[in-house]
Amino acid sequence: MNRQACDALDAADPLASLREQFELPEGVIYLDGNSLGVLPRAAAERVQQVVRDEWGRGLIRSWNSAGWIDLPQRVGDKIGLLIGAAADEVVVADSTSVNLFKVLSAALDLQRADAPQRSVIVSERQNFPTDLYIAESLARERDLELRLVDADEITAQLDDQLAVLMLTHVNYRSGRMHDMAALTRRAHEAGALVVWDLAHSAGAVPVDLNAAEADFAVGCGYKYLNGGPGAPAFAWAHARHTARMDREQMWQPLAGWLGHAAPFEFTSPYRPAPGMARFICGTPPVISMAALECGVDTVLAASPFGGMAALREKSLALTELFIRLVEQRCADQGLTLQTPQEAGLRGSQVSFAREDGGYAIMQALIARGVIGDFRAPDILRFGFTPLYTRFIDVWDAVEHLRQVLESGEWREARFNQRAAVT
Amino acid sequence: MNRQACDALDAADPLASLREQFELPEGVIYLDGNSLGVLPRAAAERVQQVVRDEWGRGLIRSWNSAGWIDLPQRVGDKIGLLIGAAADEVVVADSTSVNLFKVLSAALDLQRADAPQRSVIVSERQNFPTDLYIAESLARERDLELRLVDADEITAQLDDQLAVLMLTHVNYRSGRMHDMAALTRRAHEAGALVVWDLAHSAGAVPVDLNAAEADFAVGCGYKYLNGGPGAPAFAWAHARHTARMDREQMWQPLAGWLGHAAPFEFTSPYRPAPGMARFICGTPPVISMAALECGVDTVLAASPFGGMAALREKSLALTELFIRLVEQRCADQGLTLQTPQEAGLRGSQVSFAREDGGYAIMQALIARGVIGDFRAPDILRFGFTPLYTRFIDVWDAVEHLRQVLESGEWREARFNQRAAVT
Repeated sequence: MNRQACDALDAADPLASLREQFELPEGVIYLDGNSLGVLPRAAAERVQQVVRDEWGRGLIRSWNSAGWIDLPQRVGDKIGLLIGAAADEVVVADSTSVNLFKVLSAALDLQRADAPQRSVIVSERQNFPTDLYIAESLARERDLELRLVDADEITAQLDDQLAVLMLTHVNYRSGRMHDMAALTRRAHEAGALVVWDLAHSAGAVPVDLNAAEADFAVGCGYKYLNGGPGAPAFAWAHARHTARMDREQMWQPLAGWLGHAAPFEFTSPYRPAPGMARFICGTPPVISMAALECGVDTVLAASPFGGMAALREKSLALTELFIRLVEQRCADQGLTLQTPQEAGLRGSQVSFAREDGGYAIMQALIARGVIGDFRAPDILRFGFTPLYTRFIDVWDAVEHLRQVLESGEWREARFNQRAAVT
Repeated sequence: MNRQACDALDAADPLASLREQFELPEGVIYLDGNSLGVLPRAAAERVQQVVRDEWGRGLIRSWNSAGWIDLPQRVGDKIGLLIGAAADEVVVADSTSVNLFKVLSAALDLQRADAPQRSVIVSERQNFPTDLYIAESLARERDLELRLVDADEITAQLDDQLAVLMLTHVNYRSGRMHDMAALTRRAHEAGALVVWDLAHSAGAVPVDLNAAEADFAVGCGYKYLNGGPGAPAFAWAHARHTARMDREQMWQPLAGWLGHAAPFEFTSPYRPAPGMARFICGTPPVISMAALECGVDTVLAASPFGGMAALREKSLALTELFIRLVEQRCADQGLTLQTPQEAGLRGSQVSFAREDGGYAIMQALIARGVIGDFRAPDILRFGFTPLYTRFIDVWDAVEHLRQVLESGEWREARFNQRAAVT
C-alpha cells in the first residue's frame, strides 16, 4: 500500500461524488465527524433562508406556511430511514441527554407497571458519561440500582432483577459495536427492556431498530448526521410501546405542550399526543432543526448508491486501512489499538490508547490540519465519515501521525496546554 | 387623538432609533412579538458567520476558538442584566418546559429535605399550559397535589401544605402581571418557595429577581428577547439555593454531561457543576444560541436610553393608546378587554375576548398585514414590543380592526379555516 494506491481507491470509489455536498476547509483532513460533522453546502443556504425569509419575512406565520410545526416529525421521518424506523416513529427534539431521560423514564414506567420487583438498570461502565448520569439521576429518584459492568459482563446481568438494559450501540471511546439484535433478544428473554443510544451509529453504521425489535432509542444530530453544532437529537420507541402508552394514557415525564394531544387548544390537564409525538416537549429550535435536516439529507443522498450498506462498506475499508497503516508505519510508538479488528464489531471510528502524551499528540496533529480528538484519560480518536473522507486522507493522516510521533514535536509546551474541549 | 398626533409621538420618541435594529417586512404591523420576536439585522449576519466560518471552517475547534462552550453562560449573563440577576446566575439551555422541569424539581427537592409534609404545588388555572403540564407530571411522579386556582385565590393558598407556588409573571392570555416581590414575600412567610416563569416578562417589563428574593425562574428566548423561532430558554436560581445545592451536592434531575463539574474528564458518577452551571444539561444548539444572543443584544441596546425602565414607559404608552383607541373606535363590537387598565398590573400586551369569530377576525387582520394572534377559545391578543412598535402602528392597527369588524369581512369562509398554529 502506498499513496498512489490510495489515490486509485478514491478514483474507483462509487461514493466519491458525495463529498461535493460538503464545505471542507482547505488544508484540513477531518477525522472528527464523530464529534461534529462537516458543514453541508445546502445547510448554509438553508439556514439563511430560514432566518431571512421564514423568520424575517414570514414571522409567526411561518409556523404554518414554512412548516416549522412539522419539523420534529419531518426530520424524524428522514432519520427513521437510516435506522430502520417506520414513518411517524422518530421525533427530533431537545438533546440526546434530555431524550434519554424521556425514553428511559418511559421504559422504567412500563416495567414498574409489569414487573415492579425489577429494580436494576444495567449499563456499560465505559458508556458515554451523559447516559450514565441521566440513568443515575433516574435511579436516585426512583430508588433503583444503576449497575455498571464491562461489555463482556452484560449477558450475565440479564436476570429477573433487570428492568432496563441501557447501552450505546457503538462505544464513543473504543468504537466497539454491540450486536443490537442478539442483545435485545437475550434481554427480552430475560424480561428486560433495552434502550439504545445511537449517537455513534445513526448515519455511521446500518441500524434496523424494528428488525431488532428494540424497545427505545435515542441519538445525536451533530455527529454522523452532520446537523451542525449542538443539533437537536432524536428519539424512537417501538410501536408496541407507543400503542400501549396510548391505550393506558401513559406519559413521559417531560410533558411539554408540543407533546400534548391538542397543543393549540391550550387546555389542562395534560393529554399525551398519540404515538411518538408525546416525546416532543417544548418549542423546537427551528434554525438548528433546519440545519439538521440538511445534514440528514447528505446521508440520504447515498441512497442511489446503495445507502447505508454502501457507506458501511466504505467505512470499513477506511477504518481497516487506517488500522493497517498505523500498525505498519507507527509501530513501536506506544499506540495500542482500542477498536476491534473484527469488522462486525467496529463502528466508524478507530481509537488508540497511549500511556502518555495523547492530548499533546492530538494537538500536534491538529496543528498540522489533521483533526481527530482526544478523550480523557488516554484515547486518540479518529472518526471516518465515508461521505467525505477519502482513502488519500487516510494515507496522509497516518503520515502526519508518523511524523508527529517520530519528530517528538508533540512534546512542545504549546501542545500540552489543555483547552476546555478537545 | 388622531393619526397625526401618533406621528408626533413617534417623532418625539427617544427610543425610535432602536427600530433600525430590525428587519421589518414591508406592509406589516407586527403585534406578535410576544409570540415570536422580529429578526434583528445582526442575527442574519451572525448566524451566517456561525455557520460558514465557525462551523464550516473552524469545525470542532470552534468549541474553544469561537467560544461555543461558553454560550450558555455568556448569553445567560446578558439576559441576567434584564431580569435583576447577577453574573453567573443565569444559564441558557433547552426549552422553557425543560428548564421548568429542572427548577421545579430542584424547588421540590429543597422542600422535600426541609418540610416533607408540604405536598401541594399551587399554580394559576390560566397559566400557560406547558407550565401546568410539567407541574402535573412532577406531581404525579412524586405523589404531590397540583392545585390550580384563579389569580385572586392565590394568597388564600399560602399555608403549611404549600411546597411551591409556580406562577407566570405576566399571563399569556390576559397580559395581567403579578406583583413578584409581594407574592414572593408572602409565600416565603408561609414557608413556600416560588418559581417564576418570565416568558412574557424578560425584555418586556422590568424584572428584579434578586430584589424580589425570588427562588427560581425560567423564561423564553423567542418572545420579547427576539431570539428566533424556538430559541433556547433560560433558567435562574437564587444564589442561596445554588450555594446550598453545592454544599449538599444536590442535583437537578436532567443531569446531563454539560452540567457536570468536569464534563471533559468523562468520569462517572455524576458530580453537579457548582452554582447555576448544574442546570445545563446536554450540548446546546449553537446556531440557535447565536441568534438568541443577537436578540438579547437588541434589548440591551436600550441601555443608553434608560434600559428596561424606558422600554416600560413606552410599552405602557403603546398599550394604553391601543386600549383607548379600541374602546373609542371599535365600541359596541363585542370586544371585552381582558388586560388590566391599571398600568402596574399590565404586561406588554393587550387582549380582548370576543364571544364568537375571534379566530376569523384575527385572520382577517393578518390578511391586512396586522399580525397579532388568537388564543383559544376566545382571545384576540396583541403584543407591543417598544423596541420596534411605533405609535402610528397602534393607530393603523386599530383602524384595520375597526374596518374588519364594521365590514364583516371576517365572516368570509377563508378566514374561518383554522391552521395548526394561530
